[in-house]
Amino acid sequence: MVHIDISGSTSVCFILGKPIAQVKTPAVFNAWAARTGADAVLVPLALAETGVKPFFQAMGDWENCPGCIVTYPYKQAAYACLHEASETAAFLGACNVVRRDPDGRLVGAITDGLGYAKALVARGVPLEGSDFLLIGAGGAGAAIGHEVARRGVARLAVLELDETRRDTLLRRLEEAFPTVRCFCEPPKDFRFDVACNATPLGMHGEPRLPFPVERLGPATVVTDVVPDPAVTPFLAAARDRGLRIQTGPEMVEGQFAFVIGHLFPAP
Amino acid sequence: MVHIDISGSTSVCFILGKPIAQVKTPAVFNAWAARTGADAVLVPLALAETGVKPFFQAMGDWENCPGCIVTYPYKQAAYACLHEASETAAFLGACNVVRRDPDGRLVGAITDGLGYAKALVARGVPLEGSDFLLIGAGGAGAAIGHEVARRGVARLAVLELDETRRDTLLRRLEEAFPTVRCFCEPPKDFRFDVACNATPLGMHGEPRLPFPVERLGPATVVTDVVPDPAVTPFLAAARDRGLRIQTGPEMVEGQFAFVIGHLFPAP
Repeated sequence: MVHIDISGSTSVCFILGKPIAQVKTPAVFNAWAARTGADAVLVPLALAETGVKPFFQAMGDWENCPGCIVTYPYKQAAYACLHEASETAAFLGACNVVRRDPDGRLVGAITDGLGYAKALVARGVPLEGSDFLLIGAGGAGAAIGHEVARRGVARLAVLELDETRRDTLLRRLEEAFPTVRCFCEPPKDFRFDVACNATPLGMHGEPRLPFPVERLGPATVVTDVVPDPAVTPFLAAARDRGLRIQTGPEMVEGQFAFVIGHLFPAP
Repeated sequence: MVHIDISGSTSVCFILGKPIAQVKTPAVFNAWAARTGADAVLVPLALAETGVKPFFQAMGDWENCPGCIVTYPYKQAAYACLHEASETAAFLGACNVVRRDPDGRLVGAITDGLGYAKALVARGVPLEGSDFLLIGAGGAGAAIGHEVARRGVARLAVLELDETRRDTLLRRLEEAFPTVRCFCEPPKDFRFDVACNATPLGMHGEPRLPFPVERLGPATVVTDVVPDPAVTPFLAAARDRGLRIQTGPEMVEGQFAFVIGHLFPAP
């Protein structure tokens, strides 16, 4: 229970998605506002698809709205409404946070990869020069692939059943980061410094493992983007073999500071 | 300080206006929600004019938005976005509360006159058969004029410096309520049962009286729509002469139940 004093001068942020009832962001954001004394509140926004474009059009004129967090299924639709985008958002054609600048311009960014990498770095796992196995080339996978390439992994292997999606991501990453060597499966001498599941496998009702844990090395850090359960069958199997793990909620937690930093840039 | 627990399933209402920082409605509404256990919150919405139409377009698709309260200067612009309007809202071409029905239709009403009349009735002042002096034929004046005519005043005198505005309101009220006799100044035998200031005179910095108090009768109830100060110079002068008074805040207070009733109709 958060003590909030909403007045006529309170700034109003949103989290946009559909469905929206399950999101935890209002509680996290409003606790942050109460703790820091920010006169701001975040409320949920469940829009039917036809409302997305008019909402962002209105947001340009919404003088007490610092911005909007965006979740499934509107990250691409929100990107299409931006005036300006971060490098990663432009690469992905998607954004998960939109700031309204005082002149009404909408500036988007995507923090999934940032949160993921921040959590890894915080546990002392270097990305530069590493061999990185990415499983899944959808929205989350592409965001993480771009972020770890940007941070200078040596080799990136991307597993993805949809070959067109996989090859498109690999080609675009090679173009953007010529020093990163990209593979559609791990070469023989691949070191598996980090393995990342960016598929839905491991969610409740999806018990299959995305990759055989026994093929990983004894020093592999095994990570997952699935938010619930925190410890997926993949992570549990890795832990059983004595490997270090990083959960989906840890990645989400790592994102919050980037979201706040984007919505409320230092003057 | 209101204790609010905003989650992903909380309903979100707005108060739209510009400027908006001065409004008290968020505190009043959110205290009501906390008291009644409604999982709903009201937040301020300061829109530049070009944002009004897209906002209401988005609101039609905003599945967790029960509706929006509207204040200066957007009561007419909001009316233009409605799918359906109350009789009084249609008469005035303005609304101060818009409900979003589950099918996305926007239904508007105007409660200024309702709140005013409710407060009068609550203090035992009958409107039916009375002689009513209305000073000012702007938005608030027209709303009150329509409401007291609907409630069967016998004679209505409307004072307004803008003669076109005055005569338009008088003509339209006569058309809508043929039994009410309308005047552009009080006839000799006018009883002044109620006098209402619906002009900005009496706001801070506007000390002039809208009407000479000595022309009113000893039984006149003197009322004002100015919200701040609560007791205007006009009301103070009336009170000094021993007349009963009704303040602007009392009218606003009378409106809240109508606003809630419109936003959350009984099933």
